Amino acid sequence: MTLLFCSTTDRAEDWLGELDRRMPGLEVRVWPEMGDPADIDMALVWKPPQGLLASLPNLKLIVSLGAGVESMLLDPTLPDVPLVRMVSEGLTLDMAGFVALQVLRWHRQLDEYKALQAAQTWKQLGHKPASEVTVGFLGLGELGTASARTLLSMDYRVLGWSRTPKSVDGVESYSGAEGLPRMLGQCDLLVCLLPLTDETRGILNRDLFAALPRGAVVINAARGGHLVEADLLEALDSGHLRGASLDVFAEEPLPPGHPFWSHPRIHVTPHIAAITHPSRSAHIVVDAITALREGRPLPNLVDRGQGY
Amino acid sequence: MTLLFCSTTDRAEDWLGELDRRMPGLEVRVWPEMGDPADIDMALVWKPPQGLLASLPNLKLIVSLGAGVESMLLDPTLPDVPLVRMVSEGLTLDMAGFVALQVLRWHRQLDEYKALQAAQTWKQLGHKPASEVTVGFLGLGELGTASARTLLSMDYRVLGWSRTPKSVDGVESYSGAEGLPRMLGQCDLLVCLLPLTDETRGILNRDLFAALPRGAVVINAARGGHLVEADLLEALDSGHLRGASLDVFAEEPLPPGHPFWSHPRIHVTPHIAAITHPSRSAHIVVDAITALREGRPLPNLVDRGQGY
Repeated sequence: MTLLFCSTTDRAEDWLGELDRRMPGLEVRVWPEMGDPADIDMALVWKPPQGLLASLPNLKLIVSLGAGVESMLLDPTLPDVPLVRMVSEGLTLDMAGFVALQVLRWHRQLDEYKALQAAQTWKQLGHKPASEVTVGFLGLGELGTASARTLLSMDYRVLGWSRTPKSVDGVESYSGAEGLPRMLGQCDLLVCLLPLTDETRGILNRDLFAALPRGAVVINAARGGHLVEADLLEALDSGHLRGASLDVFAEEPLPPGHPFWSHPRIHVTPHIAAITHPSRSAHIVVDAITALREGRPLPNLVDRGQGY
Repeated sequence: MTLLFCSTTDRAEDWLGELDRRMPGLEVRVWPEMGDPADIDMALVWKPPQGLLASLPNLKLIVSLGAGVESMLLDPTLPDVPLVRMVSEGLTLDMAGFVALQVLRWHRQLDEYKALQAAQTWKQLGHKPASEVTVGFLGLGELGTASARTLLSMDYRVLGWSRTPKSVDGVESYSGAEGLPRMLGQCDLLVCLLPLTDETRGILNRDLFAALPRGAVVINAARGGHLVEADLLEALDSGHLRGASLDVFAEEPLPPGHPFWSHPRIHVTPHIAAITHPSRSAHIVVDAITALREGRPLPNLVDRGQGY
């Protein structure tokens, strides 16, 4: 069995080491040096060049290095073989840490205190107890649920909205089109962790922002396509929203000169909320390969109709 | 029964509202307007002027608005009546949130990303999974234990040191003089949450910093007296330590011109790690008053010999 590794953001040498330790004898080739395409029967990829996967005549399995596969599904030449996405504890915990960091940063006024330090000013700003701060999640999948649990353990009030009704201990849940505004009206902070689908594209728009209370904060760690950028700038500049933390963008890298870079109330991070650590995630690849080999159902299989 | 409230940092009106709601009829006077000192039989205080408590002839109970009472114990005129300190879930959760924020801030390179944003530079710095980051606690009391648990839930590796051996699920524990260097050598981040006593004063000094691995971060949310300031500056400027987050200082407010204000690798916050929210803490006062009235043992009673 031969695996093709193709990513411009993940380090091939780390993955080769982890895979070799767990599956000695597995042959791994690193794109673009793939030898005879007919040798390849599995691919481990992040944003592969369009058409690459279609050029592999004996491909039997694709594993995504990320949790979101929407960019791959946009490739009309994507072969009709099982597609597995990254749902690993490492990725999930990474995201929960990022969400906790952003929620705490806004709630505990980290940046205001940094500005006070620069001015050599000792001033206690006061803050509410976490139990009186409401955080709403858009999306209650693996990432949303884990992030919600971390915030619950810190005593935040947590709400969640999802397409279909979900039940997570301690989370007040909403679903469907009529549930959305009912949740939004209560949120001090809103965290988007939805998959990007035709239904969720542009969901962070003027109407949604208007449904949030004045002074709310928006955190987007899902996909740039969820956000209507001009609507966010308008909601910030009108004073309706307090600020935003954005890890993902319509165009990545975020282009030089983009207004988000210099906005005083937008925190930009370069798509690092959850990275796929080989040491914590290689077992997902091994599990998929083993299940395929033994003819068992594949864990974390993508439903192409749903898009995740 | 009449309670005297005395604090320059806590808001009297919030406390009066909460106490009235829970103990209607309790008379509360707000220093300096206390009327006849002989009327006062209980005091709820934070850093009261030296001698104030001694001037109350019928005092039967002192409740501290903070968890640390070392400044009160330094008052040689402190009357020998039961002294209760603030150990409330609200205060504890506040501290756990602050510690999580500072650990995440350093681990996830928040300030480096903010500098990259200012330079309009898209650059992924990489970070270890939390499971490969070791956080050591000095002090495993209420605050240390709660903070340790929050970090454990985010998958950090957590160690703890205390004067006497303690056992906290998931925390590798060390104690005593010989246990300290064994813990320090493993810490990527060190969090001080010790009580300030004769034994712990100046514990964050040159020898301790030298026992930490190169590149470690120090977080002090306990008391300024734990830290030897000149030793910290030396350990930072030699490159041995990566940085420090300091919420407490030998002199508060931190004086203008103090080198901590402008140090590029010190984050200063003005003693806000854990504030005593009346809505979350008033029950501690009510419990103490009720226990006193009914002649039951007082919860959260300070052992003056131990200092906490």
